[in-house]
Amino acid sequence: MKQLWHNCHAATLKGGKYAVIEDAAILTDGVHIAWIGPRTEAPIEGHDASHDLDGAWVTPGLIDCHTHLVFGGDRSGEFEQRLEGVSYAEIAAQGGGIASTVRATREAAEDELLASARRRARQLLNDGVTTLEVKSGYGLDLASEGKMLRVARRLGEELPVTVRTTCLAAHALPPEYAGRADDYIDLVCAEILPALAGEGLVDAVDAFCEHLAFSPAQVERVFQAAQRLGLPVKLHAEQLSSLHGSSLAARYGALSADHLEFMTEEDAIAMAAAGTVAVLLPGAFFMLRETQLPPIDALRRHGVAMAVASDLNPGTSPALSLRLMLNMACTAFRLTPEEALAGVTLNAARALGLGDSHGSLEPGKVADFVAWDIRRPAELAYWLGGDLPKRVIRHAEEVFRG
Amino acid sequence: MKQLWHNCHAATLKGGKYAVIEDAAILTDGVHIAWIGPRTEAPIEGHDASHDLDGAWVTPGLIDCHTHLVFGGDRSGEFEQRLEGVSYAEIAAQGGGIASTVRATREAAEDELLASARRRARQLLNDGVTTLEVKSGYGLDLASEGKMLRVARRLGEELPVTVRTTCLAAHALPPEYAGRADDYIDLVCAEILPALAGEGLVDAVDAFCEHLAFSPAQVERVFQAAQRLGLPVKLHAEQLSSLHGSSLAARYGALSADHLEFMTEEDAIAMAAAGTVAVLLPGAFFMLRETQLPPIDALRRHGVAMAVASDLNPGTSPALSLRLMLNMACTAFRLTPEEALAGVTLNAARALGLGDSHGSLEPGKVADFVAWDIRRPAELAYWLGGDLPKRVIRHAEEVFRG
Ligand SMILES: [Zn+2]
Ligand SMILES: [Zn+2]
Repeated sequence: MKQLWHNCHAATLKGGKYAVIEDAAILTDGVHIAWIGPRTEAPIEGHDASHDLDGAWVTPGLIDCHTHLVFGGDRSGEFEQRLEGVSYAEIAAQGGGIASTVRATREAAEDELLASARRRARQLLNDGVTTLEVKSGYGLDLASEGKMLRVARRLGEELPVTVRTTCLAAHALPPEYAGRADDYIDLVCAEILPALAGEGLVDAVDAFCEHLAFSPAQVERVFQAAQRLGLPVKLHAEQLSSLHGSSLAARYGALSADHLEFMTEEDAIAMAAAGTVAVLLPGAFFMLRETQLPPIDALRRHGVAMAVASDLNPGTSPALSLRLMLNMACTAFRLTPEEALAGVTLNAARALGLGDSHGSLEPGKVADFVAWDIRRPAELAYWLGGDLPKRVIRHAEEVFRG
Repeated sequence: MKQLWHNCHAATLKGGKYAVIEDAAILTDGVHIAWIGPRTEAPIEGHDASHDLDGAWVTPGLIDCHTHLVFGGDRSGEFEQRLEGVSYAEIAAQGGGIASTVRATREAAEDELLASARRRARQLLNDGVTTLEVKSGYGLDLASEGKMLRVARRLGEELPVTVRTTCLAAHALPPEYAGRADDYIDLVCAEILPALAGEGLVDAVDAFCEHLAFSPAQVERVFQAAQRLGLPVKLHAEQLSSLHGSSLAARYGALSADHLEFMTEEDAIAMAAAGTVAVLLPGAFFMLRETQLPPIDALRRHGVAMAVASDLNPGTSPALSLRLMLNMACTAFRLTPEEALAGVTLNAARALGLGDSHGSLEPGKVADFVAWDIRRPAELAYWLGGDLPKRVIRHAEEVFRG
């Protein structure tokens, strides 16, 4: 079916810039964009339906390229305890922190996990998200990691969203492997990854490189296992300290390195050379009251593409809005609104290996876009919270209006 | 009409605490709460309608006690310029900053102002707000201040929300009074306030006490004018420096002093003695990247009631969600989730002089409440952004479901 979408302005994000077309029209053919340009130049015949977008600003559908949205339980109780003065040590002694999420995730039935993940995913979708990455990493054994990734796949089948799965089995050390991190990495490389990849559950492989998680040497073994399976890699790197995980990720041609507050200029140079995207996570930065800013100027100077994501997770970023992350990326990290928008569109697509098919409004790309009731694109980053009126179009079909 | 609302848990906020009633029921009579308690003790007959709340958590309707939501234009362009490296001086030279909002507000027709304010108010309402304060302060002359307050009154007539108006004519010095601040204060006291009060447009009087606005002596003259008119006062105080405006406000029995980052322990003692509420505005704190925290411990120690508000304004807090402010108050200011919730319910009601009729679920109070699809009240502060599923009941009538 051919459809014409008109009476709009388009921020196409071509080349990662606004690349505005005023008074634009979009012709879609099936689920793809066939043509986009000034309305006056649009092919005026040969479409089966025509949609008036009421003067809205159209952007590519938002892409949340880093989430942990499948999890059991939540940590609102712990959030409250902390603010009431209970110490981390006491909470850990109660079995709190990530251990409580691992326990709740292992115990939850797949349908239960799906139900809670669906609620959270719906909020992101209603906020303009049409593509979503979902990581495992709270299962930490074969069955539970598989359960998480199956839930992620089912989200993509049930909801109008493209889901990319990432196996993050190397997220934390499971309690039964306490003191035996290398043995756990063996399990990840020899059993968990091959089995889940064999089931077709894994689009990419991630790990957490940090003193409180895994060493660069351990991460490298995970990357090598991914390489043997033909899977692209990503990395949680330099969030709390500088271990040069981002340089390691670049050496393995990683799609992205994520967090990056403590990365160095050398890391930026390595990432630029490898085309590894820097995924910035201002929600976690805010919730943890971090003060070390990611080196945005170095990333700009060396031409590293920057993405922005929610990091939706129960411990450090219970963020239910990707658009809020635009404001936070601008306010806290000093991205420009244009950079922030590129960060949740074209560069987020690149961070998922979808740069050729998603993330900008160009002929041949998937017809995923949002029509926003705003007067300039900067409003997407300017307003703090709230739920801007919008229509979400995915695969050339309106899937949300609010 | 008598209605029974059941199958819910209630955080009643009685006394400013959660004051939970599990498995609660609420009996409303007309627009008021007639009875609230455990379902098993509820009067089971004599109501005309019964509503199943599906196990939701019910809280009082949220009260946003500090907003500037009526304004012309927006400042997203300036927000973008700043992030693109344009200096404050250049923006001021272009006529930017608050001057641009004053110009746009003066130029806008009343219906135009109403239309843009309605869009913003709707977002706050959909987020659970049932009572809203709206300040003037971008008109800075009699006609324009009156226009703003008439728009505020019309919002209260058109939308399902209780609006309280505040005349903030002493917000900034209008350009035509440059260098003549005392003359402008004369105008405010002798003409603007009496005329607008005479029209019934003013529920309270506010001023901005700061080096870049008005001195304590000037503020005091405004307070005296308010006193002569029998109007309660409020004050923007100690946001950027310590001028002891909050102590001055307390001396005039102010309903609230707002911002307060630079207040002292002596100010807290004065406010406690006067029953003046401390209104905390974490959105502006975040957007301005402030580092000086309001002295929460001193406020607690001296028993000053704390409210939390959006400060919705185009320059320093374009915040469209009051619930997001709960998270920010907890994350940035270290309020507990219970304190934050009291801050947008009972204490916000007190900051508006509505403590006897609004802000908690108690017999005799207005039946304004929100049924949230959450598992514990702390979730209201825990989730970062998003739009939690809810039903909003105002005056015993469902006005929103989302
Ligand atoms: Zn993460
Ligand atoms: Zn204000």
